[in-house]
Amino acid sequence: MTLDAATRAAVLVEALPYVRRFAGRVVVVKYGGNALASGAHGGAGDRVLARFAEDVVLMRAVGMLPVVVHGGGPQIGELMGRLGKTPEFHDGLRVTDAETLDIARMVLVGKVNRDIVGALNLHGPLAIGCSGEDAGFITAAERDPALGYVGDVASVDPALLRHLLREGLVPVVATIGTDATGQAYNINADTVAGAVAVALGAEKLVFLTDVAGVREDRGDPTTVMRRVGADALDALVSSGAVGDGMVPKARACTHAVRAGVGAAHVLDGRIPHVLLLELLTDEGVGTMVVVS
Amino acid sequence: MTLDAATRAAVLVEALPYVRRFAGRVVVVKYGGNALASGAHGGAGDRVLARFAEDVVLMRAVGMLPVVVHGGGPQIGELMGRLGKTPEFHDGLRVTDAETLDIARMVLVGKVNRDIVGALNLHGPLAIGCSGEDAGFITAAERDPALGYVGDVASVDPALLRHLLREGLVPVVATIGTDATGQAYNINADTVAGAVAVALGAEKLVFLTDVAGVREDRGDPTTVMRRVGADALDALVSSGAVGDGMVPKARACTHAVRAGVGAAHVLDGRIPHVLLLELLTDEGVGTMVVVS
Amino acid sequence: MTLDAATRAAVLVEALPYVRRFAGRVVVVKYGGNALASGAHGGAGDRVLARFAEDVVLMRAVGMLPVVVHGGGPQIGELMGRLGKTPEFHDGLRVTDAETLDIARMVLVGKVNRDIVGALNLHGPLAIGCSGEDAGFITAAERDPALGYVGDVASVDPALLRHLLREGLVPVVATIGTDATGQAYNINADTVAGAVAVALGAEKLVFLTDVAGVREDRGDPTTVMRRVGADALDALVSSGAVGDGMVPKARACTHAVRAGVGAAHVLDGRIPHVLLLELLTDEGVGTMVVVS
Amino acid sequence: MTLDAATRAAVLVEALPYVRRFAGRVVVVKYGGNALASGAHGGAGDRVLARFAEDVVLMRAVGMLPVVVHGGGPQIGELMGRLGKTPEFHDGLRVTDAETLDIARMVLVGKVNRDIVGALNLHGPLAIGCSGEDAGFITAAERDPALGYVGDVASVDPALLRHLLREGLVPVVATIGTDATGQAYNINADTVAGAVAVALGAEKLVFLTDVAGVREDRGDPTTVMRRVGADALDALVSSGAVGDGMVPKARACTHAVRAGVGAAHVLDGRIPHVLLLELLTDEGVGTMVVVS
Amino acid sequence: MTLDAATRAAVLVEALPYVRRFAGRVVVVKYGGNALASGAHGGAGDRVLARFAEDVVLMRAVGMLPVVVHGGGPQIGELMGRLGKTPEFHDGLRVTDAETLDIARMVLVGKVNRDIVGALNLHGPLAIGCSGEDAGFITAAERDPALGYVGDVASVDPALLRHLLREGLVPVVATIGTDATGQAYNINADTVAGAVAVALGAEKLVFLTDVAGVREDRGDPTTVMRRVGADALDALVSSGAVGDGMVPKARACTHAVRAGVGAAHVLDGRIPHVLLLELLTDEGVGTMVVVS
Amino acid sequence: MTLDAATRAAVLVEALPYVRRFAGRVVVVKYGGNALASGAHGGAGDRVLARFAEDVVLMRAVGMLPVVVHGGGPQIGELMGRLGKTPEFHDGLRVTDAETLDIARMVLVGKVNRDIVGALNLHGPLAIGCSGEDAGFITAAERDPALGYVGDVASVDPALLRHLLREGLVPVVATIGTDATGQAYNINADTVAGAVAVALGAEKLVFLTDVAGVREDRGDPTTVMRRVGADALDALVSSGAVGDGMVPKARACTHAVRAGVGAAHVLDGRIPHVLLLELLTDEGVGTMVVVS
Repeated sequence: MTLDAATRAAVLVEALPYVRRFAGRVVVVKYGGNALASGAHGGAGDRVLARFAEDVVLMRAVGMLPVVVHGGGPQIGELMGRLGKTPEFHDGLRVTDAETLDIARMVLVGKVNRDIVGALNLHGPLAIGCSGEDAGFITAAERDPALGYVGDVASVDPALLRHLLREGLVPVVATIGTDATGQAYNINADTVAGAVAVALGAEKLVFLTDVAGVREDRGDPTTVMRRVGADALDALVSSGAVGDGMVPKARACTHAVRAGVGAAHVLDGRIPHVLLLELLTDEGVGTMVVVS
Repeated sequence: MTLDAATRAAVLVEALPYVRRFAGRVVVVKYGGNALASGAHGGAGDRVLARFAEDVVLMRAVGMLPVVVHGGGPQIGELMGRLGKTPEFHDGLRVTDAETLDIARMVLVGKVNRDIVGALNLHGPLAIGCSGEDAGFITAAERDPALGYVGDVASVDPALLRHLLREGLVPVVATIGTDATGQAYNINADTVAGAVAVALGAEKLVFLTDVAGVREDRGDPTTVMRRVGADALDALVSSGAVGDGMVPKARACTHAVRAGVGAAHVLDGRIPHVLLLELLTDEGVGTMVVVS
Repeated sequence: MTLDAATRAAVLVEALPYVRRFAGRVVVVKYGGNALASGAHGGAGDRVLARFAEDVVLMRAVGMLPVVVHGGGPQIGELMGRLGKTPEFHDGLRVTDAETLDIARMVLVGKVNRDIVGALNLHGPLAIGCSGEDAGFITAAERDPALGYVGDVASVDPALLRHLLREGLVPVVATIGTDATGQAYNINADTVAGAVAVALGAEKLVFLTDVAGVREDRGDPTTVMRRVGADALDALVSSGAVGDGMVPKARACTHAVRAGVGAAHVLDGRIPHVLLLELLTDEGVGTMVVVS
Repeated sequence: MTLDAATRAAVLVEALPYVRRFAGRVVVVKYGGNALASGAHGGAGDRVLARFAEDVVLMRAVGMLPVVVHGGGPQIGELMGRLGKTPEFHDGLRVTDAETLDIARMVLVGKVNRDIVGALNLHGPLAIGCSGEDAGFITAAERDPALGYVGDVASVDPALLRHLLREGLVPVVATIGTDATGQAYNINADTVAGAVAVALGAEKLVFLTDVAGVREDRGDPTTVMRRVGADALDALVSSGAVGDGMVPKARACTHAVRAGVGAAHVLDGRIPHVLLLELLTDEGVGTMVVVS
Repeated sequence: MTLDAATRAAVLVEALPYVRRFAGRVVVVKYGGNALASGAHGGAGDRVLARFAEDVVLMRAVGMLPVVVHGGGPQIGELMGRLGKTPEFHDGLRVTDAETLDIARMVLVGKVNRDIVGALNLHGPLAIGCSGEDAGFITAAERDPALGYVGDVASVDPALLRHLLREGLVPVVATIGTDATGQAYNINADTVAGAVAVALGAEKLVFLTDVAGVREDRGDPTTVMRRVGADALDALVSSGAVGDGMVPKARACTHAVRAGVGAAHVLDGRIPHVLLLELLTDEGVGTMVVVS
Repeated sequence: MTLDAATRAAVLVEALPYVRRFAGRVVVVKYGGNALASGAHGGAGDRVLARFAEDVVLMRAVGMLPVVVHGGGPQIGELMGRLGKTPEFHDGLRVTDAETLDIARMVLVGKVNRDIVGALNLHGPLAIGCSGEDAGFITAAERDPALGYVGDVASVDPALLRHLLREGLVPVVATIGTDATGQAYNINADTVAGAVAVALGAEKLVFLTDVAGVREDRGDPTTVMRRVGADALDALVSSGAVGDGMVPKARACTHAVRAGVGAAHVLDGRIPHVLLLELLTDEGVGTMVVVS
C-alpha cells in the first residue's frame, strides 16, 4: 500500500485515543455459525474466520480483552443429517432430545469451538476454548419441557472468564450450560453473548452477522439504522419491524445496554476488519444500540 | 458402617501424614476410555465414573492438585461406525485422515471430556475441560506420514495447567495437540499423561486400567508386581513379557520417573476408591514404578 | 494392622470431607493439668501426652489450626508443698498471695507449658509456648480481693495468636494474664480456653477431661449426653445436676457457642486419638454442646 | 477526512502490531532547542511544540513510555544577550563561567523545560519536569577546565526516571548534572539523551531535528540514508562526511545502539506527527541507526 | 562538646518519643526567599541554607516526611532589575505581566529551587525539585485581572507529592500553578505551603522567618506569643495587631489547623537547628498555632 | 531540666544520624541475672530493670530491633536453696541433674523471663517471652556428660525471632535449648547472646554488666579499655589478664564480631540509660570489641 504520510498520520491520530480508551476493557464478540459454515460467502468461510481471528488478535495485542461467543446451528444440522437423525419441531422450534444434545455438544465444543481456537492460535498461544459447563460458569434453566434440552441462561459466574482474561488469554465460549442436577442444555448463542457481556461489565457487545445492521424496516435494506436507543429498538421488535433471526440479537442488545454494557453493535462480518473499523474510527459501521 | 474407634483411629493416623505429604502436589491420573464405555464392567461405566469423580474431588478437597488425562478409543470407534466410516490400517495402526481426526476431536473434546467434567462438577464448580490445543499447550509432531494425523508429544507447556491448578480447578485434558502450522493431531493418551506429569513436576502419575497391575508374565495374572524399577520394567517390555496395551503405559511410567516424577502407578480402576487407597495407605495397591 | 481395602476406603471417604471443612479453621483444645500429673491414669501421664501431641501434630499437618490451652493445678500444689507453703482458703477457694502467684507462674509457664511444647516439638519445630502476659494478650481483672491474684478474663487480643498461627506454629497457652498496672493474675484455664476460642472465632472448642462427657445426672455415668443445647446445659448447671469441676467447662462451652464458636466438646482424653475421632468421623465421641 | 474503510483498515492492521511491540517500552526523544525557538519554521515554534506534545501523549496513551530530553541553546543565548553578557570562546567552544551556568540553568529548567511540560499537560496531568540534579540522577564530569562548567555525563542513575514512568508520568529532562561536590554543569543534550536511553534500556532513541536525516554527504541533501550501521556511521564522522551539529547526535546514536538500545533515529521534526509515522508504520522516515 | 552523660541521656529520653511520634508524618516547611538572598543575615545566606538542609536531612533520616515550599521575591526583583524591567504596581501589589511571569518562573524554578535542591543533595540523592505545574498538581485561579498572572490556589492534588515521599524523596516545591487552559500563575508561597499541608494531611506546618514568632503587638518584640488559637490569631489580624508580611502566614496557619493539620509554627530561621528544637523537645520555640 | 537550645541541638544533631543508621538493625542485649537479683545495687534491682526497659522501648520506638537475652544464676540458686537441694560440683562447675534442670527452667522461663516481659509491657504490648525450646529455635549439644544437662549452642534458627521482630515485638529469650531427642539443656546466657546475635546478623551485641568494661589488667579498675580488637582480647583471655565471669562474655564478643556482628560492647548496666548513650552518642561508654 502506498499511502502518503499525512493519511497514515490522520488515521493513527484518530485511532490511538480509542486504543487508550478500550485498553483493559472487555469486548464480547458473538461470531455466528453461519460465518463458519463451509460454502458461506462464496466458499469463503475460512477466509472470513482468518480475518476475524486477525482482528481479535490485534484487539488483544493493544490491550483490549476480547471474549468470543459462538453458535453452530448449521454444523449441528449437518452432523444430525449424516447420522440419519430427523429434526423434530414444536411450535416451530427444534426439539432437543438427549441424542440431539449429545450431537450439539460434540459439534459446538468439539468442532466449531476448536476451529475458532485453532484460527486464533495460529498467531500464538492465545485462545482457550471453554463451554458453560467448565467450572459450571453458565447455569441453565429449561425453557420449555416440550423442547427438551433447550435452555435459557439462569446466571453467568464471571470468575472463570475474568481469570482467563487476567492471564492474557482469549476465551472462546461454546454455549452449553448446566442446571443444578448437572443436566446440560443447549442455549441460544446470542442470548449467552449478552449475558456474558453483562456479567463481565463489558464495554461493548458486538454481533457479527451477514447483514449490514438492524433495519428500521426489515424488508428494506436501505433502512439500516446507524444508532438506535434501547426503547426504540424494543418498539421495532414489538411492532414486527425487526424480526426473525434479528430478534434474539436485538433483545440481547437492549438487555445488555440497560444492564450497564457501554454499547452493543450489529455489524456485517463480511466487511474485512469490521471489528477494527468499529472500534478504532470515529465513524463506526453497522448499527449501534445505546441505552437511550 | 459400624467400625470401632480403634480401627478408625488407626486408618486416620496412617492416612493423615500422606494427606500432609501430598498437599500442594500434582497427581496426574490417566482415566481410560474403556472405563467410560457404556456396558463396561457389567454396564457400570457410569458408576465407575461417579466413584472416580468422588475420589478426585476428595483429593482436591484435602489439598492435592489432581489433573485428569483421558482417552476415548471405543467412543471414537462407535461414532465412526455410526457415520459409516470404515477404519483403515497401516502396519496394524489406524490411519487418521482429516475426517477421522474431526470425529476423534468431536468425541474426545465434545463428549468424553464433557462427561468427565460433568461428573466432577456434580460436586461443585471444580473441573474445567481443555485440550492440548488450548493456549497451544501441547505441541504435537507427526509420528508417521502413513498414519495421517496421529501425533507424538513434541513438548508440553505447563503454564496453562499450573495456572488453572492455582485457581483451584481440576483440569481434564483431551489429548489433541497442534504443530507449528496449527494442524491438529490425535495423540495416545498414556503418552500425554506421562508428558504432562513430567512437565508439571508431578508427585505421582497414576494409570487407572481394568487389570490388577503390571504382570511379570503377561499371561499369568498371579505375577502382578507390587513394585518395579524403571530398568527392570524396560527389560520386561523389551523381552515381550509386558506387551499389548500395557506398553505405552509402561513406557510413560519409566520415562516419567526418570524425568523426576516421584512414582508411577498402574491400578485397577474397578476397585472402589482405588485412588484414595493408593495415595493414603501404607500398603498401596497395584504396581508402583520407581526410578530404580 | 490388616484392614481390608473396603474398610480403609470407608474411613477415608468419611474423614476427608471433614479434613476439607476444618482446613484453615481454629480448634482450641484445653488440655488438663490432671492428664499431665505423674501417676495419672496408672502412671501413664507421659503416654497420654505423647498421643495427644501426635493428634495435635496431625491436625496441624492437614491444615487445621490447633491452639492448646492448659492448666496445672496438681503441679502447682506439689511445688507449694515442697516449698512448705500451706494453702489458705477463702469460701472454699484457694487464696493466691504474691508468693503463690510466683509459684503458679513458674509451674505453669516454666514447667507444664514446657512439657507440652517439648512433646509437640518431638515431631518438628511446631510449638511455641506463651502466656497471656506475652504482648499483653490476655487482660485480667481481679475476681475478688479476698482471693488475691486470682483473675478473670477481661479481654483477649487475638492478634498475637493469629500471627503465630499464620506462621504455621501451634501456640501453647499458659493462663496468666495481666491488668493495666502490669500485675499478673492466675486465671482458670477452662475460662481462658473459652475466651480464646471466642476471640479467634474458633470452629471448635474441645475440653479433654478424664470423664466420658457431661452427664445429665452427675452421679450416674450412664447419663452422658451425646449432644446438648446451651440453654439445656445452663439449666443443668443451675439445678446442680452438672456440678463440681464440670461447671467452669460447661460455662465456657455455653458462652463460646453463643459467641459464635461452631461447637464445644467435652471428651475423654484417655481414649487414644480421641481428637481425631471427634473431628474426622461422622459419629463423634463425648458430649457436643451446640448453640441450641 | 473521508477515507474509505479499506484504507483505514490497512493503516490500522499495519500499526497495531507496533503498538503491541512498543507497549511498556521506553522511547527517549531528544527535542531540540531550535524547534522551540520563536521564529523557527516560519514563526511556527508553538505549533511544532503542540504537535510534538500530541504525539508524545498518544504514545503514552497506548502504553509506550516516552522520555523527553531537551536542549535550549538559542534561548540561553538570548537571555545572555539581554543581560549584556558577552559570550567567550575557547577553541571555538563557549566558555561557561558561574554566571553563564546560572543563566543556562534558569533558561533550561525554568523556561524551556516548563514550556514543554506545559504543552504536554494541556492533555492532562502527565508530564513532570526534572533536571539531572534531582535526586542526583545525572552525575557530571568536567570536560575541560578551560571551558568552565561544561560537563560530560559520568553516569545516569535510572531509578528516578523508572519510578516516574511507573507512575504513568512523562519525564521531561533538562540537561544539568552535578559532580560529587554538588557543583552543577551544563551538558550537551544529545549526549544526555543517549546516556538516558542506555541507562533505561530504551527500545528507541529518537532525535527530532530540522533536517530530513543523516546525509552520506553532508553537502548533498539527496544523500539522506534510510538505514546505517554504527560502524559505517562512525566512519562517516571520522571522514568528515558527517559533521557539525550532526556529530554529537551521530555519536550518541552509535553509542546507544552498541549499548543495547534497539535503534536510534534522526528524524525531521517539522513533519507533522513524525514520531507516530516512525513508530507505527512499516516504512519509517528519516535515518535509522542500527548496531550493524 | 563535652557534655556529661546525664545531660545527653536527658535530651535523648526527651527527644526519642517525638521521633517515634513523627515517624511517617508529613511536615511542610516554608523556607523564605529572604533567608536565601545573598547578604541576608550578615552575608550568611549560604550558612543558613546549609544548616536548614542539615535539619531537613536529619528529619528525613529519622523517618519524618519533610516537604519544602519556597518563595523567592528578592531574587525575582533582582533579575527584573538586571533586565531593566520596571515593576508596576496596582493598589500596592506588583502587577505580573507575561514577561514578569517568565522571569519569576525562571528564578523560582531555575534558580532558588535548584539552590535548595543542591544544598539538600550534598547529603545524598534525596531532594527533587518540582513546581505546581508538574503533573498539574497545583491548580491556580486568577486573583485579580488587574494584577495579571498572580494566582490563588484553587486546589492541590497530593498524589504526586505522596508518591515522591513514598520513594523516600524530599520534594522542594516552587510555587507556580496552572489553570485549566494551561496558563501559569505565580502564587504566594505562604499560601501554597498551607494548601500543601492541608492536602497532605500534614502533622505540622512550619514557617521559617527572620523574626522570633508572632507578636501580640506588632510593634513590640517582647510580645511574641508562645501558643495561640486560630480564632485569637484571626482576631489579631482583623484588629491590625498582626500585620504586613505576617498576614499571609497567619492566614495559612489558621486555615491549616482548622483543616486538620496538627499544628502550625512560626519560627526564627536564624536560630541554628530551630527545626529540630521545635520538633524534638518538650519546650518548643517560636509561636505555635493550634485549632483552639 | 533547663538546658539551653544550643546544647539540646548539639545532642540531637549528634544522635539522629545514629538513629538513622540503626533503624531496622538488630541489637542483641544480654541482661544479667545479677542485675535483677533482689538487693543488687543497693536494693535497686527493680529501678535498674525499669530504666533498662525504658531504654529498650525507646530503641524499639525509633526503629531499632532489640532482642533481650537473659540469665538467672542467682535466682536459680535461691530456689534450689529453698527446695533443700545441695549444689554438686564437677571441676568447679555446677552439675545439672534432671531436677536441677527442672528448677532452672522454672526460674528462667517462669520467673526471670516473666519479670523482664512484665517490665517492658508496662509501656505497651511489646514484649514476648520465649525460650530456645520454642519452635526448637536453639539446638543444644551436651557439653560434658559429667555436668549433666549443661549444654552448648549447636545452632540457632533465626526464623522465629525474625518473625517476631517483623511483627514489632521485642523477644525476651530464656536460654534453654533442646537436642534432637527433645532433651532440654541449660546454656550459658552469654554464649546464647553471642550465637543469637550472629544468627540474626545483628548490628551490635551488648553485655550489660556491673563493671565499667573489660580491663586490660583484671585487678586494676583503671585499665578499662575503650576499644579492643578480637585478637588482642583473645590474647588477654589466654594470658589470664581477662578472667572469671568476663571470659564467656569476651569469647562471645570475639566470636560475634568475627562472624559479622558490627561491634560488641561490655557496658556498666548501672549507669542510667547506658544503652542510649552507647548507641546514640559519638563517644560511647564501656568497652567496644571490634573485629581487628
